[in-house]
Amino acid sequence: MLVTGTSYYPEDWDADRIAEDAALMREAGISLVRVGEFAWSHMERSDGVFTFEWLHEAFRIFQENGLKVILCTPTASAPPWLVHEHPETLRCDMHGHRAYPGVREHTCYSSEAFLRCSARIVEQMAREFRDYPNLFAWQVDNEIGQSIFPYCYCDACREGFRKFLKRKYGTVEALNEAWGNTFWSLEYSAWDQVEIGGPDLRLNPSQVLDSQLYRSRAMCDFTMMQTDIIRKYCPDTIVTTNNYSPLGDRREVYRKLDVASGDFYINPQHSLGAMTAMSDRYRCFRQGTPAWLLEVAPAPWRPGRNLLGFLLWQFLARGQDVQVYFHWRSHRAGKEKINPVFLGFGNKKTDSFHLLKAATEEAHALLDRFGTLPQPLCEAAVVSDYTSDWIFMQGESRRSAWMNDGHGALLELGVNSDIVSPEDDLSGYKLLVIPVYSHFSGSAADKLRSFIGNGGVVLMSSQSGIYDAYAKYIGEPGPEHLRDVFGMEVDTGVTFLLDRDPAAPDEIGGTVRFSGFLDGEELCGIADKWIASIETLGADVPLRFTNAMYQGQPFMTEHEYGKGCAMYCGAALLDRSSYGKIVRHAVRRAGIRTLELPEGVEVIARGPVTFVFNYSVNPAVFDLPLKGRSLSDGGLENGHFELPPFGYRVIERE
Amino acid sequence: MLVTGTSYYPEDWDADRIAEDAALMREAGISLVRVGEFAWSHMERSDGVFTFEWLHEAFRIFQENGLKVILCTPTASAPPWLVHEHPETLRCDMHGHRAYPGVREHTCYSSEAFLRCSARIVEQMAREFRDYPNLFAWQVDNEIGQSIFPYCYCDACREGFRKFLKRKYGTVEALNEAWGNTFWSLEYSAWDQVEIGGPDLRLNPSQVLDSQLYRSRAMCDFTMMQTDIIRKYCPDTIVTTNNYSPLGDRREVYRKLDVASGDFYINPQHSLGAMTAMSDRYRCFRQGTPAWLLEVAPAPWRPGRNLLGFLLWQFLARGQDVQVYFHWRSHRAGKEKINPVFLGFGNKKTDSFHLLKAATEEAHALLDRFGTLPQPLCEAAVVSDYTSDWIFMQGESRRSAWMNDGHGALLELGVNSDIVSPEDDLSGYKLLVIPVYSHFSGSAADKLRSFIGNGGVVLMSSQSGIYDAYAKYIGEPGPEHLRDVFGMEVDTGVTFLLDRDPAAPDEIGGTVRFSGFLDGEELCGIADKWIASIETLGADVPLRFTNAMYQGQPFMTEHEYGKGCAMYCGAALLDRSSYGKIVRHAVRRAGIRTLELPEGVEVIARGPVTFVFNYSVNPAVFDLPLKGRSLSDGGLENGHFELPPFGYRVIERE
Amino acid sequence: MLVTGTSYYPEDWDADRIAEDAALMREAGISLVRVGEFAWSHMERSDGVFTFEWLHEAFRIFQENGLKVILCTPTASAPPWLVHEHPETLRCDMHGHRAYPGVREHTCYSSEAFLRCSARIVEQMAREFRDYPNLFAWQVDNEIGQSIFPYCYCDACREGFRKFLKRKYGTVEALNEAWGNTFWSLEYSAWDQVEIGGPDLRLNPSQVLDSQLYRSRAMCDFTMMQTDIIRKYCPDTIVTTNNYSPLGDRREVYRKLDVASGDFYINPQHSLGAMTAMSDRYRCFRQGTPAWLLEVAPAPWRPGRNLLGFLLWQFLARGQDVQVYFHWRSHRAGKEKINPVFLGFGNKKTDSFHLLKAATEEAHALLDRFGTLPQPLCEAAVVSDYTSDWIFMQGESRRSAWMNDGHGALLELGVNSDIVSPEDDLSGYKLLVIPVYSHFSGSAADKLRSFIGNGGVVLMSSQSGIYDAYAKYIGEPGPEHLRDVFGMEVDTGVTFLLDRDPAAPDEIGGTVRFSGFLDGEELCGIADKWIASIETLGADVPLRFTNAMYQGQPFMTEHEYGKGCAMYCGAALLDRSSYGKIVRHAVRRAGIRTLELPEGVEVIARGPVTFVFNYSVNPAVFDLPLKGRSLSDGGLENGHFELPPFGYRVIERE
Repeated sequence: MLVTGTSYYPEDWDADRIAEDAALMREAGISLVRVGEFAWSHMERSDGVFTFEWLHEAFRIFQENGLKVILCTPTASAPPWLVHEHPETLRCDMHGHRAYPGVREHTCYSSEAFLRCSARIVEQMAREFRDYPNLFAWQVDNEIGQSIFPYCYCDACREGFRKFLKRKYGTVEALNEAWGNTFWSLEYSAWDQVEIGGPDLRLNPSQVLDSQLYRSRAMCDFTMMQTDIIRKYCPDTIVTTNNYSPLGDRREVYRKLDVASGDFYINPQHSLGAMTAMSDRYRCFRQGTPAWLLEVAPAPWRPGRNLLGFLLWQFLARGQDVQVYFHWRSHRAGKEKINPVFLGFGNKKTDSFHLLKAATEEAHALLDRFGTLPQPLCEAAVVSDYTSDWIFMQGESRRSAWMNDGHGALLELGVNSDIVSPEDDLSGYKLLVIPVYSHFSGSAADKLRSFIGNGGVVLMSSQSGIYDAYAKYIGEPGPEHLRDVFGMEVDTGVTFLLDRDPAAPDEIGGTVRFSGFLDGEELCGIADKWIASIETLGADVPLRFTNAMYQGQPFMTEHEYGKGCAMYCGAALLDRSSYGKIVRHAVRRAGIRTLELPEGVEVIARGPVTFVFNYSVNPAVFDLPLKGRSLSDGGLENGHFELPPFGYRVIERE
Repeated sequence: MLVTGTSYYPEDWDADRIAEDAALMREAGISLVRVGEFAWSHMERSDGVFTFEWLHEAFRIFQENGLKVILCTPTASAPPWLVHEHPETLRCDMHGHRAYPGVREHTCYSSEAFLRCSARIVEQMAREFRDYPNLFAWQVDNEIGQSIFPYCYCDACREGFRKFLKRKYGTVEALNEAWGNTFWSLEYSAWDQVEIGGPDLRLNPSQVLDSQLYRSRAMCDFTMMQTDIIRKYCPDTIVTTNNYSPLGDRREVYRKLDVASGDFYINPQHSLGAMTAMSDRYRCFRQGTPAWLLEVAPAPWRPGRNLLGFLLWQFLARGQDVQVYFHWRSHRAGKEKINPVFLGFGNKKTDSFHLLKAATEEAHALLDRFGTLPQPLCEAAVVSDYTSDWIFMQGESRRSAWMNDGHGALLELGVNSDIVSPEDDLSGYKLLVIPVYSHFSGSAADKLRSFIGNGGVVLMSSQSGIYDAYAKYIGEPGPEHLRDVFGMEVDTGVTFLLDRDPAAPDEIGGTVRFSGFLDGEELCGIADKWIASIETLGADVPLRFTNAMYQGQPFMTEHEYGKGCAMYCGAALLDRSSYGKIVRHAVRRAGIRTLELPEGVEVIARGPVTFVFNYSVNPAVFDLPLKGRSLSDGGLENGHFELPPFGYRVIERE
Repeated sequence: MLVTGTSYYPEDWDADRIAEDAALMREAGISLVRVGEFAWSHMERSDGVFTFEWLHEAFRIFQENGLKVILCTPTASAPPWLVHEHPETLRCDMHGHRAYPGVREHTCYSSEAFLRCSARIVEQMAREFRDYPNLFAWQVDNEIGQSIFPYCYCDACREGFRKFLKRKYGTVEALNEAWGNTFWSLEYSAWDQVEIGGPDLRLNPSQVLDSQLYRSRAMCDFTMMQTDIIRKYCPDTIVTTNNYSPLGDRREVYRKLDVASGDFYINPQHSLGAMTAMSDRYRCFRQGTPAWLLEVAPAPWRPGRNLLGFLLWQFLARGQDVQVYFHWRSHRAGKEKINPVFLGFGNKKTDSFHLLKAATEEAHALLDRFGTLPQPLCEAAVVSDYTSDWIFMQGESRRSAWMNDGHGALLELGVNSDIVSPEDDLSGYKLLVIPVYSHFSGSAADKLRSFIGNGGVVLMSSQSGIYDAYAKYIGEPGPEHLRDVFGMEVDTGVTFLLDRDPAAPDEIGGTVRFSGFLDGEELCGIADKWIASIETLGADVPLRFTNAMYQGQPFMTEHEYGKGCAMYCGAALLDRSSYGKIVRHAVRRAGIRTLELPEGVEVIARGPVTFVFNYSVNPAVFDLPLKGRSLSDGGLENGHFELPPFGYRVIERE
């Protein structure tokens, strides 16, 4: 059941205007207001001097208008007085250049003064507002970690990092060993020689990885410090945070909160896979708990058609029943006064206002009688995990673009997928696609072994299972723990990571090719960025390299293990077409049904309701084996589709 | 009457060479020498120790050779001893990184020590040189504000900014209100929390605007401090400054000096409009007083034809009778030894020497008998103003390239234009083109209202009249004060400021189109960067949007008001072709005569003399309704032109 | 006689693995191990606490396995304890931003503490290891000067620079004169006003040049300080250093050491000239002493064919008998674990291992019976010199790409060349090609005059002989000292240094052309970047400019002087084709035999052995007047070649 909300800034307006806005929100179908995330200076005008009456008044007006409230803590924007009194709270880069008020997330999660002031304002807010019946949920901070100085090197971080390492390693000798500090003469003889690093420096990857893990830990601690205070005063509330930085372990933090919430600014020029991946990822952070959408734009920041209605349905189909727009009416001042809104700076209703009204009315009319629909169920999952990505990116590539988009490749076959960690419950899946998974812990490897042994299919590629937990090579062929499962072992004798030059002759820097047969069809493809040196231990070799210095060596292996099958492709990046064919081969082996769909068309179901979308700028004509009732037009569903560009149909299946 | 000059560096050469150079200057037609702008360390070898004899000697040599002198104050290049004794005089960026000697404009206009030393050297120079009969004029500093650190954040600037704000706003509460500081939690509770900003940071636009206004003020005060000293000792002299930075309010400062002077390094690859706009702008800073050209290159910094003669005539035609070349002979040392000169490093006369001699002889022969010709008169003017541009650029775009070139569009119709502020005298014009004018003060709006009421035509576009004086939205539909005049109101419901992707389908991020009829002809065009949401209040709508989410909405409005007409185009940037047609429509409505000219051809008149130029690399053949005498060849003017590339003809009209 | 080696890191591995590796090295044909260059923290765990047993053990294992050792001093990577105790040792940029451990060359050659600690570790190592019979040579530091902060501005550098200037100039007045400090008000009145500069600032070129010379001096002193210690303890050893930064005077430092050693990471996509120039340059730093190759990659960092064998022969042919690979087995940790190796991270032999084994076996089989072959002999030399280049780059261009590649142009004619300084012995050459030589000292000019007078041919171009030793123009026409020899003089009246726009019409910024006849053939070419203004004093003018503002002026001059001939081309950069024809003209005049070879084919000889290479991706079929025995296949050499891509043949001539 759809719940629509909007961000709103009562600190900007007087009571009359707030009341007028509240009425207009109801007219547009909005029932939820998100407030407070940038209002610290309005709540606490100077150190310890609190002014909440304006927000109480807003709460009362919202209550009178039947609007529920998501109350945000304002710690993303520490006010001028705070950083003026405590300049050491400002983040800084490695040369000591400080951030400044006027941006957001300018203060450091390791700074004592900032943590103390943050705790105080959160506690004050919890005391003040806990009793409002229309208090629907809390948002901690705003886009935690999304800072212009994402890698802070302040004294508190340096000290915090050393403490973190002492706890983790005990002695500098153990640290030297874990980081491989013999390399380039980096052996420490005392803790105070250790400095925090970051990817903006050219440092030992192991040092950078631990710096990343430390900062992720500090971000998580900061989030949970606020969460604990809120839960103390509002034990039954819902606590979430929005668009937590991918520089922190999102999965970890969202599993500690009550809801995973994203901010999704969709670019309709992106591919189907790119437009939907974030929703599918957030849905899986807390398997079973629907994710929320805490920021979505009333209109795209581009010319073209306003896809408000299309996107509302698309998010609904992926399981996001709570959708909050950013934002309601133009700010008069500041960097964001250009953002799309429902009421312009001249107080006129925008097109988006009318589109929202129509879309919410349609959604309620069609779906309310189903109550809360179940989340979409997937037979396939893509494996991805922040720590693994950080190791990968520290390790060799530094570019997430060097992974094939497994999620998108599955969608093109009509297969919806979850995006999960190996630590998640994998029992419901038939297929796991692993574009890259750098380090397998023993337990993760065991889960994969069981999954395959019990009949699952795994398609893995790239530098998977060749790193230890410290971003070092494991010192033996990979994939660690799993060589018998995959029936082969991987080393890298000759590697290359520079961009190949497509114009160069193959002989001196061009294209690496492979070929062979899959499902009886010949396949020729291009491998890129990193090339594995594979030795088989029982696996079949359906595809082999055909040129360059790799000629004749195995490219893809396939190994039956228990009731399942383990496949591996020995490159970091494959051309899109042959990757699609290899994924199709794995999908077939896993016994998952595919659909032949026009480009850009997606079919996704929640319980008895199936949603069909055309993400393309071209009309799409096709047939699907669907029977039942078309909720969109009320007629009998015959499975024949003629969808206009960005058209959709909602169907209740028989 | 042409007066030709050159920059010269007597500090580099001995008396014999200076005398030799002076004689050669006269041979080339030069009668003016510009000296001193980088000679501080040669005038004041250490703190308070002055050495002027070398310059007295140069003055005497110039006097003997009939050369007049423009004496420049040397404050653009504070000497090493000064910044060594007063390191706080060096400009710095927001992280405290300091500028250094060896560049220019490295010291701060807010720095007390720098101001004190500057005042002293200027006063010394004024005392020393005031009595020379060949002292023609003074130049204050050199290219004020053109610094590698144009935005200084030194302690003096920070303090000065706070004082400036205190005077302007009185209380922090008023400042919070003016800047809209509720946004992103920026409310100050004390003055010392306020920091100076700049466009190189991502700050509140209102803070950046006031920082800009403060720096503009400091630059102006610095200029006038020197001017006041000079005027005290030389009450009858002419004081100017050259190429004052557009980061300051040029119009304001030049109206306080005696002459507006530019440095025009023309790139002949630019368009006709771009090559001529600066001259037309400088001409209007002091309506009625001819502007000077204090730096022009002897040759372009490019291969190709040396256009010295062509450019000399072109500047003359635009009203610039004083033209000073940069510079005479190659420096042996330093960054500028590569610059084009009249005498090479090996003492040989360059081609430019011979070209200059020929050009000055021709100019004197043709024009001297007219005495001083009147400035060109224009029926049209383009409205532009530094504060408005700063608001526009802080507001949303940050790119002046997001304005249509009204001046160039008029030129292509054979219509010369002035470039003026709404505060200037507008009574002589029939048409005002306003590409963008962000904020209308009440008085500026009144002038526009009168101008239209009295029969003028205005063609306005983009985000005009929607900001207050603090760069905030006005909080009601625009254009402020003028909705009844324009017969419509503007809001922005759905905006976009990202670059559109011309390759994308219109549906998802492509092109916004409009069409309709103007003067009976169909017109189809493209709107870009910012789209207005227009509601008419009586205006006609000759052009409407035809696609995307704007389909059917008004694009261009036209409203009769009083005896005149107010037109508005609802986009920040139009394709060049349709903008040209819309400008032509406005020109016709204003009753201004157009000329059908080949591309690159310009016709411009000063009093009885008309100049015709071919700026193109192709020959131009055309006829004009001109009668009289061709001064270029002495024959009767028949109006038939066959001009070679970069050819020109000078005509005395009947 | 080939000696193959590899870098190795005993600090990473235990004795068993070292022993295993040593045996595998022998299997692959390796007889030399390079150790220690990044092991400071493993040798000196904390200040003054030394641990050498691990390295003694490695020495013993190498000795048992018949492996000789190049022992490197570890000063490129000062350990964490050192920079923690002495933070002032860290290099910094002009704003005081410090380098950090984790990169290399992060400490300053002017820092007393760093110099003291460096001397101590070097002396300790010399005492410890001087007696090993398998100690083959010493390498000082590693890639001296190749730093992320190549231009240090620390206090020690600032002080050192002032001392350097005091010694050089005596008084600030002399310094002001030498640097031309009247320009832009830079006259100093005391030494402490003088700051060190660098090319990353926009300063007086003379200041930047002396800063460069100071840093070059500090680098050289640092190298010789270590060398002196080593020579004291190991008077008979060989001392070298590898890939000394081109920001220092390589020729000077290598003439003080025993061997010039390069690190050559060949990009096979580069041209024949670019791939071979570094070898030819290093060969000439110490005329007569063979250069070493201290780092070469087992495989290219690119897809494509592994050219290990081809490159090994190519380096051999150019005189490099000692070839050391970087490196043996994958590091587990650190930034370089991705580098190509002979043993992968999983301990498997890579393709490179097998290629190396085959290549060393072939080389020994074919060449060992010749003993040490003489170095290649060249009739032509290209003149190049670091100080001249620095002046050129400070002077006007800042881009070495603005020089024609004389070495490559000669190679395309089948003419091998040395790359020498005018201070070298020139008596063996018939032709000198001088792409640019900024400043001629009197002695260098005298050598050139004698060379030509005695029958040599010189082809000079660009801004040669127009600067003094301080990067100032000489103040008279160039080429200084040599106008009578070249029969002409050069000034620059109209210059341009901006990139020309090939799309622009010639009239306004396009292409500058020249034409004429050389050897009876018409030649039309393009001149670029800098155009000389030439006046002849007896020289012939075979080529003249034909357009733009240079039409009709001399472009190329040719003058018989004594028994020889002096040619000059008046531009900084010529199109490749016409430069090739002009070089051919000079080669013919010098009486040097050319070869008609397919593109990418090279012929080069060492004593009785001739090597023929095909650097191309295409097969090459051609005939050469060669007789004797093909060592490659053992048959009679008939001079007919059908070489595959990257094929080669080794021939013992009759």
